[in-house]
Amino acid sequence: MASLLEFLRPLARSGGKMVLLVMDGLGGLPHPETGLTELEAARTPTMDRLAREGSCGLSVPVAAGVTPGSGPGHLGLFGYDPQRYVVGRGVLSALGVGLTLEPRDVAARANFATRDGDVITDRRAGRISTETCQRLARLLNERIRLEGVSVRVEPEMQHRAVVIFRGEGLSPRLSDSDPQVTGVPALPVRALEPEAERTAAVVNEFIRQAYAVLEEEHPANAILLRGFDRQPHLPQLPELFGLRAAAIAYYPMYRGLARLVGMEAHVPGPEPADAIARALELWDGYDLLFVHIKGTDSAGEDGDWARKSRVIEEVDRALPPLVERGPDVLVVTGDHSTPAMLRSHSWHPVPLLLWARTARRDRHVTKFGESECARGSLGQIRATEILPLMLAHAGRLNKYGA
Amino acid sequence: MASLLEFLRPLARSGGKMVLLVMDGLGGLPHPETGLTELEAARTPTMDRLAREGSCGLSVPVAAGVTPGSGPGHLGLFGYDPQRYVVGRGVLSALGVGLTLEPRDVAARANFATRDGDVITDRRAGRISTETCQRLARLLNERIRLEGVSVRVEPEMQHRAVVIFRGEGLSPRLSDSDPQVTGVPALPVRALEPEAERTAAVVNEFIRQAYAVLEEEHPANAILLRGFDRQPHLPQLPELFGLRAAAIAYYPMYRGLARLVGMEAHVPGPEPADAIARALELWDGYDLLFVHIKGTDSAGEDGDWARKSRVIEEVDRALPPLVERGPDVLVVTGDHSTPAMLRSHSWHPVPLLLWARTARRDRHVTKFGESECARGSLGQIRATEILPLMLAHAGRLNKYGA
Repeated sequence: MASLLEFLRPLARSGGKMVLLVMDGLGGLPHPETGLTELEAARTPTMDRLAREGSCGLSVPVAAGVTPGSGPGHLGLFGYDPQRYVVGRGVLSALGVGLTLEPRDVAARANFATRDGDVITDRRAGRISTETCQRLARLLNERIRLEGVSVRVEPEMQHRAVVIFRGEGLSPRLSDSDPQVTGVPALPVRALEPEAERTAAVVNEFIRQAYAVLEEEHPANAILLRGFDRQPHLPQLPELFGLRAAAIAYYPMYRGLARLVGMEAHVPGPEPADAIARALELWDGYDLLFVHIKGTDSAGEDGDWARKSRVIEEVDRALPPLVERGPDVLVVTGDHSTPAMLRSHSWHPVPLLLWARTARRDRHVTKFGESECARGSLGQIRATEILPLMLAHAGRLNKYGA
Repeated sequence: MASLLEFLRPLARSGGKMVLLVMDGLGGLPHPETGLTELEAARTPTMDRLAREGSCGLSVPVAAGVTPGSGPGHLGLFGYDPQRYVVGRGVLSALGVGLTLEPRDVAARANFATRDGDVITDRRAGRISTETCQRLARLLNERIRLEGVSVRVEPEMQHRAVVIFRGEGLSPRLSDSDPQVTGVPALPVRALEPEAERTAAVVNEFIRQAYAVLEEEHPANAILLRGFDRQPHLPQLPELFGLRAAAIAYYPMYRGLARLVGMEAHVPGPEPADAIARALELWDGYDLLFVHIKGTDSAGEDGDWARKSRVIEEVDRALPPLVERGPDVLVVTGDHSTPAMLRSHSWHPVPLLLWARTARRDRHVTKFGESECARGSLGQIRATEILPLMLAHAGRLNKYGA
């Protein structure tokens, strides 16, 4: 069965301008006292009006009961089946620090860790400072030399880093060295296919040299690798639908995910209003503008119910200039739920509004929120159906069959 | 494409306690006078509260318009795609009389019938008494001898029985001997694949000997076989998700279906309160408790609208101790609809409520019933999505992707 994207491709034509506004982790759960979710409690007159003038529904990011990470969450919104297209941990981390991978690169997520002899005693090296992480990454980059392969260690926050192996004929089909538990030695990296034997040897040599370089760096005297992967090859939005697409995202991971599908990435200021202002600057150059707001997810992960609600209100206050600019299609949704009550991503469907002159109107909807969206005219749909609906409402899809 | 179960398997982790309360044939149709269904007319204060505090929806057992038998109805609820996993009639009958099949056994559903010469004149032998059926089964078991194959005839009710062939190298790929109409001879059993030739010969020899044994037993002087099958091999819930799962069901068929997916079966007393009491006794030993209530379906099949409503009320009255025991996830639903007005199973979606601390709340729902569930926040989902949602709400699924 071909994916929906492949089915739609031959129907594509030019058409109107589309905005996809994603509040990361938008969906929530009711506050025990008020019975209202973060979104339902927020004062959002502009979104409420858009919901009433447009069509509402709930978006299922991956499948019933599945809690998506940021990768699957966004791929779904971009129209790509996240069960079919998988972005490995190493690649996502590389995107997260703003690295541009080449097709031949193999990336892994790395932790600085503590070892006593060979035994791993702390998988996070006591959460060393980001400064220490940066210094150790520099040290490894200066001292480690591998035959025929260049390697780069890129620091993230605290104990986290990314390692990129670049060279001809590398394979990402490797097992993790991270044992995921303490009290045991790190695992040797094993080839999961015959073609990966040489890469496994290269990576194990990297680890051997890294252990030597880090010998005196207790508590960060070991490094653990996991999630080896190569950048996936995804069909590109410009080729699929003739779309000039822009991603406007303050955090590098979301720009990286957007680049995977052929969007051009732009860095706005950190506030929601900055992202929307940037979208307006870029308006004429693009058919699809994807605007990413991170604060909702961060507040949800921190369990800060009120802050998540406030971020949503900020977005709503920043929205009028974008609405007035007159997009043909405006979608407001999230990539997944991050209920403050759970302090984590969750599987709950995500509120969704689609505004367009060609949309049906949910006149009974009084507020953009989980409960009202559950009774919206779009019903409960897969996240992968959102882009096809946007294309249709923008007049960008021809009739199928005669 | 892998099934949802297979997709979820690597995400499984341990978590909370889940109860799946199934009222067989729960869904109904409105009474012409009141416009209320059996469930809507029933006084169900506890389910109503659970519906309001949890999420409601409608469950589609197999697919649009499909009326499921008990097999597909329950497999769907257990998370197994009933279009992919099929339990043959013979196997279902064997489960129904409480037989435990071995993987090599071939089972068939049997009818005692009446013949005049070779021509079948009554496919049900005038609905002989169950006692006669038991006597004839004993007679066949004593007298029939097959080379290298043991055979067992197990009586059901009236003219119905199950025949189990046990031996090495048997194949279930056989055509029926039951012609499904009268006025013609029974059909010879034919092999549907070359490997089934010997089994076909064995079965035809069984029928020849049975005709001889039954010669003087008019009106039960023939036996018709259909629905040859072997027990299907289904992935097991304990292996898929690390679940210790119990089935609490008064009727053997439902215990048999539950054992097919790796549940341990327990026999409660005949009343709804007995089943719930038994679930409470078994509480600590299991992660998932499947409680089956038959009375709703029986009343529906009898066309007894009021009795179906009363059974639902009985279940509601028995429910508080189970709710107070504090399951992490409680689902109340049915395996299919059995509207008393139709006196049979039907294709209508089934009311569904999911209660959990991590569930969204359908505060607008005032009553657990078909109409209110149609506006519930879960929307209309496949039965196979219920178990994934239960796992998620019980905290039993890790995040997918980074």
